Amino acid sequence: MLRVPCSKLHDTFEAILRAAGMGAANATLCAALFTDATSDGVPSHGVNRFPAFVKSILSGQVSPDATPTLASGFAALERYHGNSGPGPTNAHFAMARACTLAGQFGIGCVALGFTNHWMRAGNYGWQAAERGCIGICFTNGTPVMAPQGAHVAKLGNNPLVIAVPRPDGRHVVLDTALSQYSWGRLKILRAAGKQADLPAGYTQEGALSNDPDAVLRSGATLPIGHWKGAGIALLFDLVAASLANGLASWQVAREPFDHLISQTFIALDPRPLGSDPEAADAIVAGILADLHGTPPTRPGEPLLHPGERTLAAREESLRLGAPVEEAIWAQVLALPGGNGGAD
Amino acid sequence: MLRVPCSKLHDTFEAILRAAGMGAANATLCAALFTDATSDGVPSHGVNRFPAFVKSILSGQVSPDATPTLASGFAALERYHGNSGPGPTNAHFAMARACTLAGQFGIGCVALGFTNHWMRAGNYGWQAAERGCIGICFTNGTPVMAPQGAHVAKLGNNPLVIAVPRPDGRHVVLDTALSQYSWGRLKILRAAGKQADLPAGYTQEGALSNDPDAVLRSGATLPIGHWKGAGIALLFDLVAASLANGLASWQVAREPFDHLISQTFIALDPRPLGSDPEAADAIVAGILADLHGTPPTRPGEPLLHPGERTLAAREESLRLGAPVEEAIWAQVLALPGGNGGAD
Repeated sequence: MLRVPCSKLHDTFEAILRAAGMGAANATLCAALFTDATSDGVPSHGVNRFPAFVKSILSGQVSPDATPTLASGFAALERYHGNSGPGPTNAHFAMARACTLAGQFGIGCVALGFTNHWMRAGNYGWQAAERGCIGICFTNGTPVMAPQGAHVAKLGNNPLVIAVPRPDGRHVVLDTALSQYSWGRLKILRAAGKQADLPAGYTQEGALSNDPDAVLRSGATLPIGHWKGAGIALLFDLVAASLANGLASWQVAREPFDHLISQTFIALDPRPLGSDPEAADAIVAGILADLHGTPPTRPGEPLLHPGERTLAAREESLRLGAPVEEAIWAQVLALPGGNGGAD
Repeated sequence: MLRVPCSKLHDTFEAILRAAGMGAANATLCAALFTDATSDGVPSHGVNRFPAFVKSILSGQVSPDATPTLASGFAALERYHGNSGPGPTNAHFAMARACTLAGQFGIGCVALGFTNHWMRAGNYGWQAAERGCIGICFTNGTPVMAPQGAHVAKLGNNPLVIAVPRPDGRHVVLDTALSQYSWGRLKILRAAGKQADLPAGYTQEGALSNDPDAVLRSGATLPIGHWKGAGIALLFDLVAASLANGLASWQVAREPFDHLISQTFIALDPRPLGSDPEAADAIVAGILADLHGTPPTRPGEPLLHPGERTLAAREESLRLGAPVEEAIWAQVLALPGGNGGAD
């Protein structure tokens, strides 16, 4: 495992995106979002995914310089057409706009259609929290989960992000897909010859299975809580597609991976409600203290809240450089603009 | 199983609530909400819970005539103090107000603190949908779930409701607690001497278990998707308590069951965005058609969407009367004002 300085990651991503035809504004932001994912300990949606992202630009799936355009808006609710722009920059725009609306109205919502995979979902939660807002966002996507009562992929894993800001910047950010395991995790387990600890999905014959190979072959992963996660995923698809006047998962299934998808961004700005900020944060601190004070089942493994590992990874990446697999970094540097590492 | 006409249910509930000291306005609405839960096929949060609800009034936990008072508001975001009023009427007020704000701003949010158990969560989703709004609401509550890495109850099961309106009234309404099984379901399984099909929670020694008795004794049920549902429940507590400036689950643990809890109600009104209503509903219809067209694992058991069973139960209840267990109905009629059934 290499340690690559975050600034080096950023500059490399940016140069490659420019070489792929992306203009300066989108390239700088997009490079920052890939860097953040990597330095925050989510390389699966950062550096590891970067070569495929560049390919999606070169193949024409992603329009590198597109930005969202307002389709219609009414006070605190706006609908944007994503123009098949880069998923990360489109999503960042949408959450920024939701936060601005929240500043004006207390709560704001941006519905975004015809966008592409946003890569690391949590980025947009951290973004809202940095603005002092509670952020909630979710997306639809290519079907990879089985609805209850079936064993074929019909639902996206439709990740959910909920972020709660803290004045010291140590925000609480949940970033969770609605499948029990991600596609990538199942591939890692398969490559290691391991079974999943929990049922991971269905076999092609319709049996629940912990075998990553069987689940990857059926394509039907298991929603969290079986019928419950399946229901939540369906509702996210209904809300995201209908609010955005965009495409639903069953239509995205005909497209390249997570192309022309629909997303919902909600921001809440509690500051105008006029609580004393310290008193407001004391409620958050009290909940976290109760969690952290819970006796762990395994001695020496204290309970963590969502976002806590992220902060630890970020601090380590800033100090030592972000951890990057050597083979992946070689692939990145070999991309046009990556300069073969010669700089 | 008796079949009690819905109007008879309503009038009985109302008379008993009046006898318990509730004024006409709250009693009529509260009776309607208990009736809806029962006729919609959720007696666990309708007629079966009614005797305990009346007891909570008589014990002073619930202030029968209280209504929410505005603590602070800014455009589309309002915070109310629930004054320990009846959970159902307080929640109904909050969702109604969120829908009104959504009509004014496209989206609206009401944060409600110091309220009581809202009984059947789905009621407030159907309510928003009847107003033509997308409704999203969640609550915190008495700790009944284990956070990841522990085997003691620290998290509420923090139900989530998401509702999507349809012009024909056949709305899609998800109503799901974040525990894999409800407390009530585990008691039914235990009484029947059955094991749960899936892991239901933890033993007092910290082992995952399908044994309802072991889980009821530890009090630590399993969140959907293990660490994932635990994370969602924690974030709902953080958002609900901090937005409402109210109490968190760890504080509610010291109170009688689900007393002085915090809730969040969000409504979205997409109509001002100006899509043709039929075109907008076609997106919803397309998603549901795709789901209904999915080959079921068990032949002859077609897939259903959230809310579909509810509509079937409601139609049957309106035709035949709502199904009520004889012993429960006898308990209700024996309450002061229940008139012993003599009318």
